[in-house]
Amino acid sequence: MRIALAQINPTVGDFTGNTAKILQFAERAAAMGATLVLFPELAVCGYPPADLLEKDSFVTRAGEAVEEIARWTAVRGRPALLCGTVMPAVTPGGKHIRNVAALLDGGDVRFIQQKMLLPFYDVFDEQRYFEPGAGQELTVLGGQPLAITICEDAWNDKGFWPRRLYDVDPVEDLMGEWQRQEPELAAKPRVILNISASPFWQGKRHLRQEMLAALARRHGAVVAMVNQVGGNDSLIFDGSSLAVGPDGVLIARAASFAEDLVMVETERAPAIPHDHEAWSLAHEIGAVWDALVLGTHDYLQKCGFQKALVGLSGGIDSALVAAIAVEALGAENVTGLGMPSEYSSGGSVADARALAANLGIRFELIRIHEVFTEYMEALDPLFAGTEFGLAEENLQARIRGGLLMAVSNKTGALVLTTGNKSEMSTGYSTLYGDMVGGLAVIGDVWKTRVYQLCAYANREQERIPETTMHKPPSAELRPGQMDTDSLPPYDVLDPMLEAYVERYCSAEQIAKEQGQDVDFVRQVLKLVERSEYKRQQAAPVLKVTKKSFGMGRRFPIAAKVQV
Amino acid sequence: MRIALAQINPTVGDFTGNTAKILQFAERAAAMGATLVLFPELAVCGYPPADLLEKDSFVTRAGEAVEEIARWTAVRGRPALLCGTVMPAVTPGGKHIRNVAALLDGGDVRFIQQKMLLPFYDVFDEQRYFEPGAGQELTVLGGQPLAITICEDAWNDKGFWPRRLYDVDPVEDLMGEWQRQEPELAAKPRVILNISASPFWQGKRHLRQEMLAALARRHGAVVAMVNQVGGNDSLIFDGSSLAVGPDGVLIARAASFAEDLVMVETERAPAIPHDHEAWSLAHEIGAVWDALVLGTHDYLQKCGFQKALVGLSGGIDSALVAAIAVEALGAENVTGLGMPSEYSSGGSVADARALAANLGIRFELIRIHEVFTEYMEALDPLFAGTEFGLAEENLQARIRGGLLMAVSNKTGALVLTTGNKSEMSTGYSTLYGDMVGGLAVIGDVWKTRVYQLCAYANREQERIPETTMHKPPSAELRPGQMDTDSLPPYDVLDPMLEAYVERYCSAEQIAKEQGQDVDFVRQVLKLVERSEYKRQQAAPVLKVTKKSFGMGRRFPIAAKVQV
Repeated sequence: MRIALAQINPTVGDFTGNTAKILQFAERAAAMGATLVLFPELAVCGYPPADLLEKDSFVTRAGEAVEEIARWTAVRGRPALLCGTVMPAVTPGGKHIRNVAALLDGGDVRFIQQKMLLPFYDVFDEQRYFEPGAGQELTVLGGQPLAITICEDAWNDKGFWPRRLYDVDPVEDLMGEWQRQEPELAAKPRVILNISASPFWQGKRHLRQEMLAALARRHGAVVAMVNQVGGNDSLIFDGSSLAVGPDGVLIARAASFAEDLVMVETERAPAIPHDHEAWSLAHEIGAVWDALVLGTHDYLQKCGFQKALVGLSGGIDSALVAAIAVEALGAENVTGLGMPSEYSSGGSVADARALAANLGIRFELIRIHEVFTEYMEALDPLFAGTEFGLAEENLQARIRGGLLMAVSNKTGALVLTTGNKSEMSTGYSTLYGDMVGGLAVIGDVWKTRVYQLCAYANREQERIPETTMHKPPSAELRPGQMDTDSLPPYDVLDPMLEAYVERYCSAEQIAKEQGQDVDFVRQVLKLVERSEYKRQQAAPVLKVTKKSFGMGRRFPIAAKVQV
Repeated sequence: MRIALAQINPTVGDFTGNTAKILQFAERAAAMGATLVLFPELAVCGYPPADLLEKDSFVTRAGEAVEEIARWTAVRGRPALLCGTVMPAVTPGGKHIRNVAALLDGGDVRFIQQKMLLPFYDVFDEQRYFEPGAGQELTVLGGQPLAITICEDAWNDKGFWPRRLYDVDPVEDLMGEWQRQEPELAAKPRVILNISASPFWQGKRHLRQEMLAALARRHGAVVAMVNQVGGNDSLIFDGSSLAVGPDGVLIARAASFAEDLVMVETERAPAIPHDHEAWSLAHEIGAVWDALVLGTHDYLQKCGFQKALVGLSGGIDSALVAAIAVEALGAENVTGLGMPSEYSSGGSVADARALAANLGIRFELIRIHEVFTEYMEALDPLFAGTEFGLAEENLQARIRGGLLMAVSNKTGALVLTTGNKSEMSTGYSTLYGDMVGGLAVIGDVWKTRVYQLCAYANREQERIPETTMHKPPSAELRPGQMDTDSLPPYDVLDPMLEAYVERYCSAEQIAKEQGQDVDFVRQVLKLVERSEYKRQQAAPVLKVTKKSFGMGRRFPIAAKVQV
């Protein structure tokens, strides 16, 4: 059997565009001799549709799209299509829809497999919308039995996971059914299909391959998985569709972070040549870069923006965001705005200019001193006699925010936010100041990782100026200010934050694990708890770690949290 | 049996404070001769704890708190306590905790009832955290059988709901068990207990009473329900605990929007006198007012703020927010800041001053013209030759936002946001401008409802000036600007938005229902879809309708949504 993995980039809710894309990939797969083409989970409507699923018209339109796609298969000789979609759940009670895989063949919906396991953790909300599958079965296409699964259905193998999240294993159940088939069918090569919408985080591609290989070996089956690709708000789907043989060896692999169409032979498929670079944990820095580029590109494109605007401080965070924006959108679509104050160091503007020159982007300069002075004049009746402090520091950041938004409103360019994960964790940022913007490009990148990404950006030629890479971090909001005035050095801070924010370790655990004083740890963790209100007003953060800020991390504000 | 309903206001995560409060109410109930005291769902940790539940230490501390509370019951003659808490779920797989009711008596945990039905819709995420109850049973206290249920467990009666959300009915199952008891126990008065954390929306109190009365009649039982009270971020728990007799007649009722302790006699309880005002749908405007006052008070108090700051434009929205803040915090803790521009009408400042005088709050005036002029000067190299437009309009709002935040940073007062639900729906607001603030007090109040609330605020004396009530709405960002330049009149707009935002009606349904042209409807609904990005960066919105903006309404930004 010749199976095509159609790794497409759908837009949520764009039934017309997604249907056209599915049919275009189907045509290409047909020309390549495919007998079956797999499309990702919920390919018809895009993943994740969130509360759009609660609108009846949305579910109706998904049904109409599936009918249109099925009609394409009416022509003799065309391949069958397996396509993720949403369908009404016909039940006396419970949730009103199901997440399904529809097998389209001969002009009709030939078979429906229902998703059994509905992820509920981190960014996933599937138990909010979907009734779990009432049952599942094998289907037969051209004499070949097929075990069809949807994403999470394949993620519950008792041999692979130390603790399972669900009581049933849909793959095991389907393979049990296989053994009970007529001898002629039971003797056919075992094929497990999985259609997915599995978002990226560092290390996820490696994990996915290991897990699917373990599944293949345990069941002696070919496993073919197609994954969605593309950015949808915070989530970046990496694609990286793959197939493994019954021995767990890779027999097909699609691109990461781009649409692709690859073929899988279910019998006698040769192993593909080993590639040390691909998906190995040692090379994830490049994957994070690619993910951020795709996430930025798709957010602007799917929101209808061509151009981006970045405030350039001369520092490393804004430099990285500008470099990512240039790769995502082209230098001609990115503008850098320098907005120095009297507290900006002499080198800041020069560094920002050098960056803009390296990247080939337009650079504009607006000094904020006069606006700041006028604000202070206006505030004098209320501020007279008080000392320069937080209000004055934040005001400078907010003037910059106001200028960025004014230029954005005037030119139609989207402002990209430049805060990193260390800042977002500790609240070392100004709400409505440096936090303004439509997308927090590096909001899930620790400061120490920012340096690594800049080194990666410079791997072929200097894009981020060396002076920017090597100066000590500073917000430059008061004379001689350094980040280390308020925070521990980032190589001490980041591991503590990572343990707390991503792994939910306690202060005691962190102190022990990292050899720190527990009171010092507690002091840092309190910063995280105190700044939750800022994060809840932040722009969407592109997710590149297992636990990022946003929908996958839901904390109360008005709470007493002991750290 | 004499049961006390202890309607308490816990703070999420404040185990020490919540435990102290529980014991204090237990003492009071003991003094009143109670044999059993009911506390709300998750009373030990506060509701909703959200992802705090994913921290092991949180669950451990809940267990320690329950032990401490149980010890209080060791003294002979003290009542038993029924208390909501979280416990580890001892299962081979699945979620790791359960939402339970713990019956504490004689110094120990005597009985645990597990929550069976876990709400998953709107603001609820319980299927994200909790393993559903594996089973439930009756318990007996002092010879009296008790059917203990937790919140949603009582919300699935097949006779009451047109469509049920779950396949099982825990109340029906428990009552079935009652009939199978020993004759002596089965003959005892039937008592259904329900401990809840049921947030307010307009009409919810009426619905709750109707539903519990239907349950009482169907099962011939006394139903006693205790509800949490207090604001936790967006959610306002109204309390309104109640008990009904087997005939469905009210036999006990606690206050709405305040802590309370009321007694329920399970045998021969007289009906309480009928009160036409209480909970009737005709009087919900007062309930919405009380809810917003409580929500504002608790947000500030639980976040550690004493004082609030409101930008006063002379318009009706900011006037209402200031009036609510005064009732919540006291006039001495509220400051109004007038920030007129050259486009502000002559009456605006006078109206703002009159409001401040009526409310007895401090009023400060800062003119924004000079700051605006300096911004335009700074932007001139980029803006020269362009026309006055959106950028310049928004800039004025953002200068005001900057001033509010500067004063907030200087004085430690929390900025309250003044946007209403009509503005939030259509995006008729400036991100980082009039949207700045820690809490969107009236973000779930339609503009037409704002007028009703102002009339309610003025019911005894004029608080909102008549001139503010009667002038046509304007953002005053350009000469002669009126809201009706951009939007239909609010009495036409609000019903369309309500149907779309709260009931998910399609454009066709709305056009038909409201006698409007479908293209006109579509044009308005597109405003809702285009402004999702603003709502995702908005301050938490106090929820007073069945569907408010925030966690209960999750929509993608980068999507193509057909209206």
